[in-house]
Amino acid sequence: MQLPKPYLLFLADGSSLAQCKTAAGLRDWCPHDVLGQFAMESCRVDLGLPRLTPAAAAAAGARSLVIGVAPVGGAIPPRWVPALLEALEAGLDLVSGMHTRLSALPAVAAAAKRLGRSLFDVRHSDQVYTAATGARRSGRRALTVGMDCAIGKKYAALELTRALRERGMPATFRATGQTGIMIAGAGIAIDAVVADFIAGAAEALSPAAAADHWDVIEGQGALFHPAYGGVTLGLVHGSQPDAMVLCHDPLRTHIEEYPHHPLPTLQSAMDQYLCAAHVTNPAARFVGISLNTSGLDPERRMRVMHGLEAQFDLPVIDPMQDGAGRIAAAMLRDYRHIS
Amino acid sequence: MQLPKPYLLFLADGSSLAQCKTAAGLRDWCPHDVLGQFAMESCRVDLGLPRLTPAAAAAAGARSLVIGVAPVGGAIPPRWVPALLEALEAGLDLVSGMHTRLSALPAVAAAAKRLGRSLFDVRHSDQVYTAATGARRSGRRALTVGMDCAIGKKYAALELTRALRERGMPATFRATGQTGIMIAGAGIAIDAVVADFIAGAAEALSPAAAADHWDVIEGQGALFHPAYGGVTLGLVHGSQPDAMVLCHDPLRTHIEEYPHHPLPTLQSAMDQYLCAAHVTNPAARFVGISLNTSGLDPERRMRVMHGLEAQFDLPVIDPMQDGAGRIAAAMLRDYRHIS
Repeated sequence: MQLPKPYLLFLADGSSLAQCKTAAGLRDWCPHDVLGQFAMESCRVDLGLPRLTPAAAAAAGARSLVIGVAPVGGAIPPRWVPALLEALEAGLDLVSGMHTRLSALPAVAAAAKRLGRSLFDVRHSDQVYTAATGARRSGRRALTVGMDCAIGKKYAALELTRALRERGMPATFRATGQTGIMIAGAGIAIDAVVADFIAGAAEALSPAAAADHWDVIEGQGALFHPAYGGVTLGLVHGSQPDAMVLCHDPLRTHIEEYPHHPLPTLQSAMDQYLCAAHVTNPAARFVGISLNTSGLDPERRMRVMHGLEAQFDLPVIDPMQDGAGRIAAAMLRDYRHIS
Repeated sequence: MQLPKPYLLFLADGSSLAQCKTAAGLRDWCPHDVLGQFAMESCRVDLGLPRLTPAAAAAAGARSLVIGVAPVGGAIPPRWVPALLEALEAGLDLVSGMHTRLSALPAVAAAAKRLGRSLFDVRHSDQVYTAATGARRSGRRALTVGMDCAIGKKYAALELTRALRERGMPATFRATGQTGIMIAGAGIAIDAVVADFIAGAAEALSPAAAADHWDVIEGQGALFHPAYGGVTLGLVHGSQPDAMVLCHDPLRTHIEEYPHHPLPTLQSAMDQYLCAAHVTNPAARFVGISLNTSGLDPERRMRVMHGLEAQFDLPVIDPMQDGAGRIAAAMLRDYRHIS
């Protein structure tokens, strides 16, 4: 799936920045691919981007309108359809991460067909994958893994990709979730593939590459997540990571929305991830810990980070505050002489 | 998915018993649901069942023709279509575990529509599931887990269901693979669901039940299988097993078709399964080991079984030779006073 950039971001009738976090992520992570924002009159969110109509955006070179807002439930409400049609008429393709498929909206499907426009549903997967081979392939792979969902795995992978490149190491961000796919313009919604092919899809996502090239793969879920652990395990197996980064929020005590499922210790989590990763890569190891410390005061933040550094002898970062340079530097050092 | 029984078994142009193992499994495991066999002239397999035309089978009460043969590749060859049409014309529904969907055969789809017949593709899943809740539910659950694929998990689950019932314990076999679904007449092809919903589908497969009722769930894959581990983990999480039976073939040294993936030790495998199962059921434990000893001479068979009994202090059975009575008896004893 290759998404046509640059984008016009559709905020629809978004009522909060939280609802528009997909659009905000695109603004922050691929600013050169974003030409502007387009909203309905009732929208109460402003991302500080140029306000463009679809026609003006198309004239400026935009190729897709991206739905950048996600109301609860993930359905596309009928009131958005006129704006989507306006974008198609202006010559833009549509990109959506919603549960509702764009092609399931009759007016949208008809207009796209009439105008020769493409509809991209990044949450869904119509691609057919094969079962994983388990065979080692050339190139290096890093995978962000987590103590839970929504704990910074995408952000850590993006920062690590940037930090590796800044140090002269060839690196590619590999997206496995909808926002990541929109940022990268490509990827596989790994939780949407048929169960038998999770690891196979992960193999396809990070194919053989030059020996010193790093694929930095966006992790999903958690091995011990009661609903999504299977996705996580298949992604670990297929990614064959050389290096893993454990992502955590020190204030998270249990799986989000699963109050009866306390998190394991970080040591237990690492042991479980290593056991899983060693199935397809016996050399897999952790190279760092990535924290979301936004909920901690400065003193506690320092105490937590220093404590974990001492406990695990690994660089501990908050990618939002520190970037991932310390992890990239450690990887540069550790893998320089490994082919 | 509820399949209409009784069945007429279609052997097509099967050339070996191995190719017809689905039909042989149905003959052995649900003999009261099987009225006869139906083959093309070139078929070289005989299951010893009455030879019936679709019309004769329908007159005797049959409701479905089941494709009981699986050539390499899993496609339905065009030369079978006349026989499938004959069955539809005779009033039978069609049941298939092939990769090719019955509805993808235009002549079959048209005839089924015209005649009001149903087409069941048990390898595919069009059902929509929800994410697992992780919430405990009433009733007891046993899950067969394995050192690999094709190592006796279905057989062990069927024998255990039978042995529990023979001892007066209410028990239901829960099928997760195509042959199991045909035997039970219901179930979920767990490897065909969307990755996000593996555990959710497993929860749906074994719903809340009476406190002393056992669901005996057919396991799939292996946690450390490089292609299918994700399916296995989601099935373990969603099944919330109280009791697990580890299935093994003492002659299997590596994952079948993955020569570079040696099997872990049985102890390591048990540790990994327990770690996974404890995410949703802290009381999960092993209650037995089920071996395929068909490749061992009698002396080695005894030595292996006694050795494992001593090592793990668990009943060790070969369900093909011994049934699962010793495991059922141990469960009867151990769970009598647990509500």
